Amino acid sequence: MSAHEPTSITETIRQIGRQARAAGRELTRSATGARNAALEAMAVRIEANAGAIAAANAEDLEAAREAGLDPALIDRMELNEARIQGMADGLREIAALPDPVGAVRDLASRPSGIQVGRMRTPIGVIGIIYESRPNVTADAAGLCLKSGNAAILRGGSEAIRSNRAIAEQIRGGLEDAGLPADGVQVIATTDRDAVGALIQMPESVDVVVPRGGKGLVERIAREARVPVIKHLEGVCHVYVDSDADPGKAVAIAVNAKTQRLGTCNTMETLLVAEPAAERVLPEIGRQLAEAGIEVRGCARTQGLVADAVPASEDDWATEYLGPILAVRVVDGFDAAAEHIERYGSGHTEAIVTESYSRAQRFLREVDASSVMVNASTRFADGQEYGLGAEIGISTDKLHARGPVGLEGLTTEKYIVLGDGHIRS
Amino acid sequence: MSAHEPTSITETIRQIGRQARAAGRELTRSATGARNAALEAMAVRIEANAGAIAAANAEDLEAAREAGLDPALIDRMELNEARIQGMADGLREIAALPDPVGAVRDLASRPSGIQVGRMRTPIGVIGIIYESRPNVTADAAGLCLKSGNAAILRGGSEAIRSNRAIAEQIRGGLEDAGLPADGVQVIATTDRDAVGALIQMPESVDVVVPRGGKGLVERIAREARVPVIKHLEGVCHVYVDSDADPGKAVAIAVNAKTQRLGTCNTMETLLVAEPAAERVLPEIGRQLAEAGIEVRGCARTQGLVADAVPASEDDWATEYLGPILAVRVVDGFDAAAEHIERYGSGHTEAIVTESYSRAQRFLREVDASSVMVNASTRFADGQEYGLGAEIGISTDKLHARGPVGLEGLTTEKYIVLGDGHIRS
Repeated sequence: MSAHEPTSITETIRQIGRQARAAGRELTRSATGARNAALEAMAVRIEANAGAIAAANAEDLEAAREAGLDPALIDRMELNEARIQGMADGLREIAALPDPVGAVRDLASRPSGIQVGRMRTPIGVIGIIYESRPNVTADAAGLCLKSGNAAILRGGSEAIRSNRAIAEQIRGGLEDAGLPADGVQVIATTDRDAVGALIQMPESVDVVVPRGGKGLVERIAREARVPVIKHLEGVCHVYVDSDADPGKAVAIAVNAKTQRLGTCNTMETLLVAEPAAERVLPEIGRQLAEAGIEVRGCARTQGLVADAVPASEDDWATEYLGPILAVRVVDGFDAAAEHIERYGSGHTEAIVTESYSRAQRFLREVDASSVMVNASTRFADGQEYGLGAEIGISTDKLHARGPVGLEGLTTEKYIVLGDGHIRS
Repeated sequence: MSAHEPTSITETIRQIGRQARAAGRELTRSATGARNAALEAMAVRIEANAGAIAAANAEDLEAAREAGLDPALIDRMELNEARIQGMADGLREIAALPDPVGAVRDLASRPSGIQVGRMRTPIGVIGIIYESRPNVTADAAGLCLKSGNAAILRGGSEAIRSNRAIAEQIRGGLEDAGLPADGVQVIATTDRDAVGALIQMPESVDVVVPRGGKGLVERIAREARVPVIKHLEGVCHVYVDSDADPGKAVAIAVNAKTQRLGTCNTMETLLVAEPAAERVLPEIGRQLAEAGIEVRGCARTQGLVADAVPASEDDWATEYLGPILAVRVVDGFDAAAEHIERYGSGHTEAIVTESYSRAQRFLREVDASSVMVNASTRFADGQEYGLGAEIGISTDKLHARGPVGLEGLTTEKYIVLGDGHIRS
């Protein structure tokens, strides 16, 4: 034991923070090639050590079953062969993305003679707090490294053996490429105070990204003393306008709800303009019933959708993440916009319309991280948008909004190029 | 009195917040022409009511003198004819800037067939907290309005009559253009709890910008529950590299310190590489002495600058905002970079060098809102960078970094254009 052994969890986390800051400095300076080589080395090591990772994961699963954890949570924890290969593939995909660091835009001459532009740079140190899925360890580490940041990862305590096993490969990959292993650190304690310490040290952590349920995210947003990139929930709407094409309306409404039930960009409330309701709601209701979706509707909806049950006030504000849809017939565009503003979570909102003016108004006026015309809310996704992998989706307004890829993990500084220029 | 008369300062501020949110919705939808017309109408009203503004200001000045306030603060409070005209001119300059709202970039087709791009939008409601200068009321209102945001302004209590008089013209100008007067609200109480309430209502305020001394900004950063765009201080450096051109080095060092003493982009510490010290320091010392600047130097500096007094550890971390300069001779680039990282405030850092490699390293590796090669730190300014007026300079890393103009008061959302596209 050293004389400097940390005496408390707070001191342990502070030490991790200092190590991250030092490693972050090296990563900021590192060449694109070195970071890509590290990503490839990580992938190779994960493939080569798939057995060790699976064994650690088996221990976590065993402990989780003994502790009687929720089977859905245990399912998310599991690292089968395909998921382990998926981590390696994901790291190689990140390596193949363009390097955002160092890009300069808008460099232009000013009347004084100086040239002014903006250079993209890493943020520094990023803390990621997540729940049961251990594969986030590899994804998050890869995105932070590619964007030149050091990462401090704090996964769910129930997956700690899996996370440690993955981290060992990640850190080995960094060293293989001549980069500091402390570029990625996993907090290897289950002490809950570790999170509190991590989110309250602005001197060592520049931003935290909580990924998990609403309870976790709310707690972190409330207690953090560093900036947080987050999304709380996705109460997403599709509004079928009076000028909607009925075929597009039915296809989009059904897809937005049923293509996957448990994702944050799944539609949770369908709004239909009264003049369109008779044309589209019976068919939407039929297809939703086929897909096993329960409809909770307003009075007008109940007149058009067989088996619809009455919706309560709470239904308009609920993210079901399951086989239930709230449906409301509204008078028109303004009523729909008001409903979305009142009950929406600022995640993803879509209009189905052939009206040029209402499409333009919707795009401009609806305040959400993604606004869509004649497309399913399910498209709100980093891969679909062409960002590559994403660290999460932000419903915050500042810095990063919507799917957050490599760009959201960087910032820009001004650069000024002179030749002895002074200000007069 | 109405039955709904607020019962406490917190309720008063909440009511202001609700009014701002409603007005912000209207401003988001407003046409560029209407916002520009409002800015022009404000300018006309300020000119027409210059007498009333001056009279209100005279009352503030009288009260401030009676209260024995610092003469420098009283000077900043004063609205003479030129400063009142300056407010009107400033509003017209803001009207002439391009409208950032609604701009779409990077709209491109994705393999799925959807088009994805990013649209610039107002943030919503912006709180500005400032100290004695009442002309900030007009500048901040103009920038927030131009960028489609509602503003809640809280000026120094010692200038409250001046701020109310200016606000009356601003709100009249909004109404002249058919926009809601509540687009700009001035908190017309001197109750200190008003600030506490303002920075803790994320439901009504999207971001606050504190403008003032370090004490005010630190308090707000610590207590805010909404995002803050801020800068704490400007401990800016010029590093004269071993390969510096001596003429450029002397001109830049002297300009960066003496062109204006009290601004945040003024150099506070000069670093000189040992090989260059004999060539440049005696002449820099001579010119600084002529300008009445006290030099506090390391031992090597004291050997080269007549009258230099010893620098203490504290000097390296001090923002003097006055006629003092800390000077340190360092071994070379790495020592300079370490010094800047340790003592700098992330504001503006400059290198003077003819070395291509060290210029590139400085631009890339130094972590500050502005990094410069062969130019005076005094250029770090919204007007000099071509942003037009600025709401402040941010040393935060996220969202807005460096001079914050109209773009920093906006955000971007993703827009998706489909034609009935669904996700498969």
